[in-house]
Amino acid sequence: MKGRFTVPDFDLIIVGTGSGNSLPSPANEHQKIAIVEKGTFGGTCINVGCIPTKMFVHTADVARSFSEASRLSLTGELQHVDWKDIQRRVFTDRIDPISESGAAYRAGDETPNITLFEGTARFVGPRTLQIDDGPTITGANIVLATGGRPRIHPALADVRYRTNEDIMRLDELPKSLIVVGGGIVAVEFAAMFSGLGTQVTLINRSEKLLRKLDADISEAFTTQAKQQWTNHLGRTITAAEEADNGQITLTLDDGTTVTGEEVLVAMGRVNNSDTLDCEAGGVKTREDGLIEVDEYGRTSADGVWALGDACNDFELKHVANAEARVVAHNLAHPDGLRKFNHDVVPSGVFTHPQIGVVGMTEQEARETGRPLTVKIQKYGDVAYGWAMEDTTGFCKVIADRSTGEILGAHIIGPEASSLIQCFVTAMTFGINARDFAEKQYWPHPALTELVENALLGLDFEN
Amino acid sequence: MKGRFTVPDFDLIIVGTGSGNSLPSPANEHQKIAIVEKGTFGGTCINVGCIPTKMFVHTADVARSFSEASRLSLTGELQHVDWKDIQRRVFTDRIDPISESGAAYRAGDETPNITLFEGTARFVGPRTLQIDDGPTITGANIVLATGGRPRIHPALADVRYRTNEDIMRLDELPKSLIVVGGGIVAVEFAAMFSGLGTQVTLINRSEKLLRKLDADISEAFTTQAKQQWTNHLGRTITAAEEADNGQITLTLDDGTTVTGEEVLVAMGRVNNSDTLDCEAGGVKTREDGLIEVDEYGRTSADGVWALGDACNDFELKHVANAEARVVAHNLAHPDGLRKFNHDVVPSGVFTHPQIGVVGMTEQEARETGRPLTVKIQKYGDVAYGWAMEDTTGFCKVIADRSTGEILGAHIIGPEASSLIQCFVTAMTFGINARDFAEKQYWPHPALTELVENALLGLDFEN
Repeated sequence: MKGRFTVPDFDLIIVGTGSGNSLPSPANEHQKIAIVEKGTFGGTCINVGCIPTKMFVHTADVARSFSEASRLSLTGELQHVDWKDIQRRVFTDRIDPISESGAAYRAGDETPNITLFEGTARFVGPRTLQIDDGPTITGANIVLATGGRPRIHPALADVRYRTNEDIMRLDELPKSLIVVGGGIVAVEFAAMFSGLGTQVTLINRSEKLLRKLDADISEAFTTQAKQQWTNHLGRTITAAEEADNGQITLTLDDGTTVTGEEVLVAMGRVNNSDTLDCEAGGVKTREDGLIEVDEYGRTSADGVWALGDACNDFELKHVANAEARVVAHNLAHPDGLRKFNHDVVPSGVFTHPQIGVVGMTEQEARETGRPLTVKIQKYGDVAYGWAMEDTTGFCKVIADRSTGEILGAHIIGPEASSLIQCFVTAMTFGINARDFAEKQYWPHPALTELVENALLGLDFEN
Repeated sequence: MKGRFTVPDFDLIIVGTGSGNSLPSPANEHQKIAIVEKGTFGGTCINVGCIPTKMFVHTADVARSFSEASRLSLTGELQHVDWKDIQRRVFTDRIDPISESGAAYRAGDETPNITLFEGTARFVGPRTLQIDDGPTITGANIVLATGGRPRIHPALADVRYRTNEDIMRLDELPKSLIVVGGGIVAVEFAAMFSGLGTQVTLINRSEKLLRKLDADISEAFTTQAKQQWTNHLGRTITAAEEADNGQITLTLDDGTTVTGEEVLVAMGRVNNSDTLDCEAGGVKTREDGLIEVDEYGRTSADGVWALGDACNDFELKHVANAEARVVAHNLAHPDGLRKFNHDVVPSGVFTHPQIGVVGMTEQEARETGRPLTVKIQKYGDVAYGWAMEDTTGFCKVIADRSTGEILGAHIIGPEASSLIQCFVTAMTFGINARDFAEKQYWPHPALTELVENALLGLDFEN
């Protein structure tokens, strides 16, 4: 090696403490590591995403079951929702201590090789980041695990609104809530607040809720959502006004007005790459803000990596975690790089009813030109579905009718996010539909018979 | 062929309409078939077993959630259990029509090749059965799918008692119920009635409930049962008395007396082979009454087959159904016989909490002498378990620590009967623990993370 060079301040700089925080391991003890976090330590999932929302959602599911109990020949009443006590369970007892102890651990004596910078990092040169207006640090490697943030509707700029980041911290359970959006975050919160007794009104540009999912699932969910809360679909917001009493009124493009105590904006997410001044670091981004990476997680800048929502559009914690494991490996093994795995990626939507999906929608499968067989198996036609008196849930499975390969599966109904794992397994390990159905036992009368019967209902060429 | 022979009355006689009723198919349309049923058409599972019990059990689970709602910061009140309406849903609307239409179908014009005999069949010679005191029929093949019945405690001979066959048909939800037994049927009914508000007292000879399961599961379940109903464990019944007001009092071997409005006997099952006069048909039975079969389902008598509870001691509908498929195949393919599959047989116990098990207990695994690794993963340490505020559930997995082969898995907690399918799949398709955990995605934060983390917690040699 010849020429001038500078020893970087850190062996590794990690920007973002969501999945990024999982990178340092005992194997890195000899390395000098900087961790930068601009918000709450731990990132979206643990603080304002998957974890706390599911704690609220499950509570709402149980609350809702009281009002639905007549279907099961029971008369009951939900008498009180102790919103403050839910918050105590979720935040005081569970989430906040995790975030606080995580930050303290990284900042403290137990990890002497790690320095925690609390602020927003932006590139000021190759592998060089400035933290707010403070220190500038260089890293031999930099990992951008910077995630995203909620997209805000411009018409709402001048009124009070909430996002997933603060709505769970409201002082009181709102009597009424306007939800703007129709994707996963929107329908999870709509179902959650609706289940807890809030009057929910949802406004969505598309006629369908969860429109990116398989059309049958989207259609079925939209139908069921209409029985749970008020929906203004195919509508956009043209104006917003906040009254003296704090009530917000939104005007829609058809002239309708909707008034509510609170507004939740859940119309998608914006990539945080715009906070990074990527250009100054030589890090290319896509038009939609995603940081460009190759299959190993390398950005266009030498020594700069990215993972999770920063660089993929799954917006799924399990994908971000898997990418973090790959990047951790790749940092340690520059001559034996591993690839990101974006095959057979499932997701759960914890709305009501619950949804689990993996693989292609029917539309996507049709576009492949492969010969297909499709089965829709109703919960109401398997024994445990009888027990649940379920009349709306189903499992849709799409397979290649000549090879038996499962191409996609889509479940809407109780335990959907658990049941989908059967399909994830079959697809990941290459077990064809018939073998998967017939060569293993399915304990009777468990709800997994839904999956078994969906598979048995496929129609193969041979 | 030379000599004297008689054309049998039927190509096939099926005794028992549980899984046996699934044998005739369009492939048999050319055959003359007799079906014999001594009780309610459809057998145990659909009429007095898996199906109706789960409908009651799920209802009880929802009823119980009212009283447990404070854990989730909810106040709810269960005001009324409409027992008659449950029975309407279960029997009038669902079960009874299935049984009735099943019998009518077999007896009717749509299946002209099938004759339904309603009565008890017993052998009066090789391949020759008499129905009660009525007709004697011969079959080229006979399939014994005769199942079992509840075992009755001799001390109860002179008092009123119920079994799984009639307890769900009681006119009223009893205020108090004494359950005799500690196996699956006993604890399912104990949890069900307890959940619906009946005062349950359970008497069991063993100190442990579900004592045949893995010791940790049995121990944990016994502990939790004690919080749900009164248990007299390690006790036997020495006397029983029925008062004029209909209350039953049982005296235990320690002198304790237990009084209740109803008594449920659930202390195991007796094989129905004793009704068949097997000896007269040349059909050998074991000391415990099970009909002896080889791996193809053939009994010791030429042309006589058996399946299900008649010949195996799993007492599981999915095993009986699988055996019925094997026997159906073997009847049609005498030169290409298939074997019964008794590997990787899971079962669900629909008590509270729910239980799912597959493979070896730890004790059984230890006895193999193989090097083991065992992990107990608590629900309370995975995200969805937090949402559920679960403090008692766990998944125990036992694997070979050198090969990673999963030997057994045992789950107690919500969705256990669904979650166990993951292990059934891994074990059936020979996917080792580490691959199963690491090579597929587990959607976050679904409850399947319990399985993922149980597997990741195993400690392998390499």
